Amino acid sequence: MQDYDDFMIKVPMVKVNTKELRVVSYEDTIIKEDRVSLYLNGTKIISTMCILNDQDAHAVGFLMSEGVIENIEDIYNIEVSKDGLSVFINAKINDENIANLFHEKTLTSGCCVGVSANFEGKIIQKFLSQKVRFHLKEIEQYLLKFQKDTELFYLTGCVHKAMLFCGNQVFSSEDIGRHNALDKVIGKAKLAKVDTSTALLIVSGRLSMEMVIKCAMHDIPIVVSNAATTALGIQSAQNLGITLVGFAKNGYMNIYTHKSRIILPCDIQNDYEVLSRLES
Amino acid sequence: MQDYDDFMIKVPMVKVNTKELRVVSYEDTIIKEDRVSLYLNGTKIISTMCILNDQDAHAVGFLMSEGVIENIEDIYNIEVSKDGLSVFINAKINDENIANLFHEKTLTSGCCVGVSANFEGKIIQKFLSQKVRFHLKEIEQYLLKFQKDTELFYLTGCVHKAMLFCGNQVFSSEDIGRHNALDKVIGKAKLAKVDTSTALLIVSGRLSMEMVIKCAMHDIPIVVSNAATTALGIQSAQNLGITLVGFAKNGYMNIYTHKSRIILPCDIQNDYEVLSRLES
Repeated sequence: MQDYDDFMIKVPMVKVNTKELRVVSYEDTIIKEDRVSLYLNGTKIISTMCILNDQDAHAVGFLMSEGVIENIEDIYNIEVSKDGLSVFINAKINDENIANLFHEKTLTSGCCVGVSANFEGKIIQKFLSQKVRFHLKEIEQYLLKFQKDTELFYLTGCVHKAMLFCGNQVFSSEDIGRHNALDKVIGKAKLAKVDTSTALLIVSGRLSMEMVIKCAMHDIPIVVSNAATTALGIQSAQNLGITLVGFAKNGYMNIYTHKSRIILPCDIQNDYEVLSRLES
Repeated sequence: MQDYDDFMIKVPMVKVNTKELRVVSYEDTIIKEDRVSLYLNGTKIISTMCILNDQDAHAVGFLMSEGVIENIEDIYNIEVSKDGLSVFINAKINDENIANLFHEKTLTSGCCVGVSANFEGKIIQKFLSQKVRFHLKEIEQYLLKFQKDTELFYLTGCVHKAMLFCGNQVFSSEDIGRHNALDKVIGKAKLAKVDTSTALLIVSGRLSMEMVIKCAMHDIPIVVSNAATTALGIQSAQNLGITLVGFAKNGYMNIYTHKSRIILPCDIQNDYEVLSRLES
């Protein structure tokens, strides 16, 4: 069995207690995701963003769930590369089902297809202006607004939410998928011809790399979630100049990247400076 | 603004208080998802499983996030069909980015590509044997096991989990994506050549249609989640003969479909019969 430590990293961050106005922690444990490529009979058929464990079982489960491999006995051999990033399977396959696999491109809830491909091309070269700043108090007010009016979630327990605060204009969307909710709220701002380069986004879902890149596409400088973020989410935000805030709930806030965009009350500025010394 | 009621349905179910052994509710409010198709300049480019609101904004946000449409002014017109299931956009597009959109097929966390396409073909014709049954007590014991050993979640707050209980053999997986966790655990059972047709599955994620269909692919007769389920999740489970249990946590359990697979203590059998009369 692999050590759990292989799948996590420690990252520097500032955990702020927003009620007592003090920094309570300087480090967080974050899940690491990687892109694993699946080669079937010598051809690369798909990549998946996932944790680097059980890659062989993952590939087998995926191909059998899709009906591409019909019986476990149809597999001649499975090999996982030493770096864990590639799985090679040779097997007897159902040609019809492999053709169907991408016949109808259906994005299911939580799914995001293209962004990762575009990422490595051009988006990574972006670095958002650091001029836009928000007071901690202001973010807290937005969070309060975000938590209100969630009737769909309250009644069904089954939706994600995204809110975009663009000065006086506020856009809000809900969907079963976190990517859908984000796309909807961005679309609303675009249709209203509102500049998103000074906006603050709050979402209810996990901040994976793809979510962060989408925000960079629209120059959204600060992204807040009441859920977790991933290692690549933090790395992308760092590289793209985005301020990433996770676990923003119950009077706490984890600030992972580009902290200077958030203006803290004097009371905790000292704590902040301790961190800066730690980082330097 | 659309009425929230448009996005939800009331479904019959049995909510059991597993501590006090009584039925506490016979109805639940469930989110409705649908497949929305996006046509760009006359060509269908993608479908998305989503809530039927803000379809125009969703399409605009998606295409602009992917860089397919670069400026809002490049859109000539947008039309949503009367049934809300199709969006037609005519726009000036970036040819390179639309080509990239599906160039590298990367499944991001929570994503599932092929299953839906295969669904309408053959899987829907399946109906699982109703012979396999589980005592409520047994399911509770599995749930206790499921809640233990979640160190990755405890430390990062950022993983999904799936556990497959196949008689004496138990398989467990974690991943950032709920589909990945499910594929991994199924792959483990397949590699161990274990029969999954008498197994019970517990997952931490939302039970959408695709999750249910995957279980049907492997003849898993009972699927339990501590999260929500969707309208199409319930409908597929009903049609495929799968017992679907949602919100299995804190001493409660919502049984949505094929209830007879779960054997209840005599104390609540009467309540159950009330329901049967209500249903008939």
